[in-house]
Formats: sequence, structure tokens, C-alpha cells
Amino acid sequence: MPALSIQPRARLFHGHVWVYATEIKARFGDPKPGDVVQLQDARGKPIGSAIYNPQSQISARLFSYRRQDLDLDFFTRRIERAMRSREAAGVDMQLCRLVWSESDGLPGVVIDRYGDCLVLQTLTLAMAQRQDLIIQALQSLLSPRSIVQRNEGNVRKAEGLELIKGPVLGDAPAPFVMRHQGSAFHVDPIEGQKTGLYLDQLDNYQHVARLAKGRRVLDCFTNQGGFAQACALAGAAEVTAVDISEPAIATAKANAEISGSRVNFIAANCFDFLKQQESSGATYDLIILDPPSFTKSKATVKDAMRGYKEIHLRAMKMLQPGGIFATFSCSHHVSRGEFHASIEDAAVDARKTLRRVATYTQSPDHPILATIPETEYLTGYAYEVVASW
Amino acid sequence: MPALSIQPRARLFHGHVWVYATEIKARFGDPKPGDVVQLQDARGKPIGSAIYNPQSQISARLFSYRRQDLDLDFFTRRIERAMRSREAAGVDMQLCRLVWSESDGLPGVVIDRYGDCLVLQTLTLAMAQRQDLIIQALQSLLSPRSIVQRNEGNVRKAEGLELIKGPVLGDAPAPFVMRHQGSAFHVDPIEGQKTGLYLDQLDNYQHVARLAKGRRVLDCFTNQGGFAQACALAGAAEVTAVDISEPAIATAKANAEISGSRVNFIAANCFDFLKQQESSGATYDLIILDPPSFTKSKATVKDAMRGYKEIHLRAMKMLQPGGIFATFSCSHHVSRGEFHASIEDAAVDARKTLRRVATYTQSPDHPILATIPETEYLTGYAYEVVASW
Repeated sequence: MPALSIQPRARLFHGHVWVYATEIKARFGDPKPGDVVQLQDARGKPIGSAIYNPQSQISARLFSYRRQDLDLDFFTRRIERAMRSREAAGVDMQLCRLVWSESDGLPGVVIDRYGDCLVLQTLTLAMAQRQDLIIQALQSLLSPRSIVQRNEGNVRKAEGLELIKGPVLGDAPAPFVMRHQGSAFHVDPIEGQKTGLYLDQLDNYQHVARLAKGRRVLDCFTNQGGFAQACALAGAAEVTAVDISEPAIATAKANAEISGSRVNFIAANCFDFLKQQESSGATYDLIILDPPSFTKSKATVKDAMRGYKEIHLRAMKMLQPGGIFATFSCSHHVSRGEFHASIEDAAVDARKTLRRVATYTQSPDHPILATIPETEYLTGYAYEVVASW
Repeated sequence: MPALSIQPRARLFHGHVWVYATEIKARFGDPKPGDVVQLQDARGKPIGSAIYNPQSQISARLFSYRRQDLDLDFFTRRIERAMRSREAAGVDMQLCRLVWSESDGLPGVVIDRYGDCLVLQTLTLAMAQRQDLIIQALQSLLSPRSIVQRNEGNVRKAEGLELIKGPVLGDAPAPFVMRHQGSAFHVDPIEGQKTGLYLDQLDNYQHVARLAKGRRVLDCFTNQGGFAQACALAGAAEVTAVDISEPAIATAKANAEISGSRVNFIAANCFDFLKQQESSGATYDLIILDPPSFTKSKATVKDAMRGYKEIHLRAMKMLQPGGIFATFSCSHHVSRGEFHASIEDAAVDARKTLRRVATYTQSPDHPILATIPETEYLTGYAYEVVASW
């Protein structure tokens, strides 16, 4: 089997599973793109098995600390293990991310379950080459009615893979509705933006809704109305939900009708809306800020921080003592510390004393591994205004 | 009223409430130790009211952004506010920290409630001088059977205050037992180390116990057996609990008998015990590490990190895939990042892949304020071993 020898001090020796091109010391046995390769340290001591793609900056990704082939049995075992861990964590097994790439020992493989429809991504060359085996494993484990591939986006490009989407098992499923804790969500497996539904926030909808009873709620960047519906169902006095996307607002309205949650939906730019509300002297009792990622790279973190600061400041100004805001960042380029600093800065400018109510993270179907910092990306806090100065 | 003018760039202008001696630009009106002083910025703009003690390195502590006296009405309102916030957070109001110093706008005042016994600390000069007003406020709000003062420790010394303990209202209460979620705890209001019971971990006993069902549990640094009892009551297969203190083990045994939880208690140095267990090839399914603070200052953080690394490493080595450890740090000198780094280092040495199961913080009766980092000091994680290399 082909092999790579890895430079000392590579992140691999600190518990990571990625090997950057610059961390490869030597290649043996002429490894081909998509091959399984054996990794060894500079002295030849074996480390484990990895997938190889010299076209990608991340040229190898370890998937086992043993000598291991990518066969049907392996895929079946890894998917089973991922499912067991989600069951143990109390995840809704009908509506969840079943497999999340490196976090589940399957680099580049992402599998989402929406009832009897599975949505599959193979984002690394080796896994794309073995997509049929993965489909076979899924068939035998779950007998889904359909499997759809959503092989799009920059990650595929970086691996030199074509962009392709559509059914790979069964017929192309029409858009449908999934229920979660009383709320309704539209799922469009083929055309929806990320299928339209953010699985990583499902738990947080419920966590935040526990703070909503009797409160006048403002849900910014509502998308499908996840927070808004959950708050309305949890007994909020009134709920206003805002999103810049007209189609998202239309979908959110349809969702709220299905779930029987009373929400006032507004299609507007959230920055403009917050500004206008604040200057008109509006107040709320609970404000939720769940913006899309303000930055996709380290380079634009400064812009992102400006964005967070602005929405934090405006939200705080519309809260009286006793009022709460819940705020989220979904970029792993913004650290928990940086995100928190934006809250602190805004608190000083808004002249508010803030007491922490809760800390949030991604739902457990997006597992965080201790030694792979990239697996942790969703950060959130709820803070209550104790006093205005 | 006497006043202090504060240097620009002082932490006060970043939302903190402390004024260090070096941050005072000028004094007006001859403030006396223990006085209420008005704070103003370098241009004379008023900031708020603070307590003053030039003997302490932290010479002033802001307690209100208004002009405010320390009268009975003020103490009553602040204590009421602290109680309301705990009620809203679902805190057990019979067994909790009712007031926690700066976090509740009462710098240096700590009030713990154990049923009809209150334990009071006044750790700043100004609050010590007004202790009778605080006792009066507590009497009218809660009609406790007894109030005990525990005015000991280095903080009092730094303020130039005498060390004193004993009843200040009612008779000296004999030690008694408090129940929490089925577990039993001995409370010795006058002689116990911090009254013997760590209120800031009460919630975490329950959180961790949810992972214990059917597992063989090892609880290190068990003290009164908080984690051990909760795990036993939650259906652990067996529980072993270790503490170096013979009296703590005796108390923990008595607690477990009262709560009907089956725990095997061992008096031993936890470092030695972990070492001996690991080298004898013992394994567990859930290991809890809740050591006392390894460091009381920035200077000994390195030693603390060595301590964490050692117990993390030994615990991980005794866990098979599927096994979980829960680990806590209660020093605010060790940051969340540093503490997590110790877990990462140990994972690499122990050759384990770890998936996060939970993140823990202090119970909500120890509120965290956004702009006062010192209010956040208790950090914890639960990690599951996914694979051994």
C-alpha cells in the first residue's frame, strides 16, 4: 500500500487528522489521488490510514489509527457508530445529521436524515470515488425511500471534484414538511439552501424558547422561523420575526401556519430593521440574533466583528432591565473569546450590566472532537440586562 | 460627599466595577476608609457610587451607576433583586447562594441560605461596617432562625478587617443535614470548611449523573460525595468515591446512608489512587474529576496545569471506547482555553479520540457578569472516548 512519511511537529502529532501538503516529508509506492495511504512518522513508525488527494491543500486525512481499507464493512461500522452516539445523546433520529465528516471518522462524508429521505455529501475525492459503497451501507442500515446527493460548493472544487446534485437512490423527492418539537420546517432536498433547515440549531430553538414565556420576542435572521415558532409555542406574549429573504419569510409563514404558532413575519434587512426599531424607541423582552456567518475566512473577521457589535448594541438598547438577548455566531473563524468581546464592547457602549443566562453550542449531531478545533464552530450566549446606567 | 477622579483607560470604563489604587487620579472631600464615594471621570463627569478602602489594592468598588447611599432600603432592594433572579433561573431557594458580591451589586457581601439558617460574609470594609443593616434587611425579608457570620480568610485581611465567625442572630446552630435532589449533605455553618458544601456544583451533580446509568463510576475528590450520591441515585452500576480527607469521607458515608445511595468510599490521595488503579489495569465507564483549586494565583498556574494533565491522562487511560470522563476546574486563574489544552495534551499522550458530551459552568446562584471576567471561575467538560489508538 502507498505511504506518506510525515514531518515532525505536524498537527497530526497533536491529535488532528489533517495532513497539509507542507507536512508531507516523503511519498512511497506512488500514491494516486483518492488512494488510501499509510501514514508514518519520520522514523517509519506507522500512524494509521488516510485518504489522499495531492490536489487539495489538505493532502491527506487520517480516518483510522489502524491499517484499514475503505470497504463496505468499514462504512457500515462507522455509520452505525455515528448513529449510536446520536441516540445516546438524545438526538431526534428522524431529523438530524447522521454523519458529520471528520467528527465521525469519515472525512468528507456528510449525511443528513429527514425521515425516509437521506441527503448525502461526499466532499473529498476518496469518498466521492466510493460514494456507491456509502449508498449501499445506507441502504442496508436504513432502507431509505430516497437518497439525494448535494455535492456542491467550494469544498468539492478544492478537491477537484465536479459539482452535482440530484437523486442517487429512488425518485427525486418533492419538497416536504418535517415536524420538530411542535414546530414545522420545509425541506427541499434538492433545491433548498442547505436543504433549507439548520439542524445544528434545532436544540437551541428549544433552549431559547424556555426563556420566552410571557415575553415580547424579536427574532432576527429568522430564516424558516425556528426560534420564532418555538417561542410562540412556548407561550411568548408576541413574536416578531425578520429576515431579508422574501422566500424565507414565505416559507416561515407557511411553517407557522402548520405549527399553529402566532408570529408576525417581516421581510426586511435585519440591520436596517434593528436601526429603525431602536431609533423609534421600540422595546422587546427577548431579542434573538442568529445571523448567517458574517465571515468565511480569517481575512474578514474584522468585518464580522463590526457586524456583531452593531446588532449587539442595537439589541441591548431595546432591552429594559429584565430583558434578555440570545446571540449566536456560526463561524469557527470567530473564536468564542472574540465573539464574547463583541458583547462586552456593546454592553459598555449601551451602558448595560449583563448577567449570563445560558451558553449555547451546536446540537450533538455535530460532534466536537477535543483535538480538532475546526469541529467547534457554533457559539451562543443568552444575557439578561440587570441594569441600565 | 467625598469623590474620586478616575484615570482614563481604567477598567471601570470597560464595564468593570473595580478601581485599583493606581487608577485613582485624585481624591476630593477627604474620603475615609469605608466611606461611600462618588466616582467621576477625568473631566468631572459623574460615573456612580463606590465603596472606598485605601488599604486594599482594589481601593474602590462601584456598586451603583447613580448617586446612592448604603441604607437599609438599598440593601433590601439588592437582596430582593438577587433572590428574584435566582427564582427565575430555577434555583432551589432553600439551598443556594442568595447573594454573591459584585455579581449581585453588593461588593464583598456573600449570603448563603441553608433552609432557615443564613451564612453571611462581609468581605469589604464598607460592608463590614454596615453588617447590621444587612442583617436587618435579611431579617425582614426571610425571618431566618439564625444568621451566622463567617468572616475569615485572606480577603478580609487584605481589607484590614479582623477574622471572626459565629452567630450574629439567633443561637449557634448545630450541624444539620440538607437534602438536594435526593442527595444528603451535612452543613456545619460555623466549623465546616466553607460550611462543607459546594453550592456552585449542585447543578453539575445532576448534569453528570444523567450520564451515569448502568456505568461503573469513579468519583475523585468526592468531598461530601455530591457526584457519587447523584450517580448512585441515577442508577450507576457501581460507584467508587475517593477523597484524601478522612473526615470528608466519614461525612460522605453518613450522607450516602441518609440518601440511600450505594457508594464505595475510599480515603486516599487521589493522585496516588489514580496512579495505582491505572497501573493495576483497572477500568471504569465514567470518571469524575472535581479537584480543589490547584492554584490560588497566576504564579502557580504551571503547577496547576501539571496537576490537570496528570489526572486527565490517568483517567483517560482507564477508559475504553464509550467511556466518559467529566472534569472541572474551579480557578479563574486557569482560563477555559488553558484547561481545555490540558485535556488535548492528555488525549494525545493517552492516544484517545475524544468527543465532547457536555460543557459545564457554575450554578446560576453564582452569576457571571459579561464585563467582570472574575465572576466566571468554574469550567467543566464531559468527553467520551470514541477510539483508542
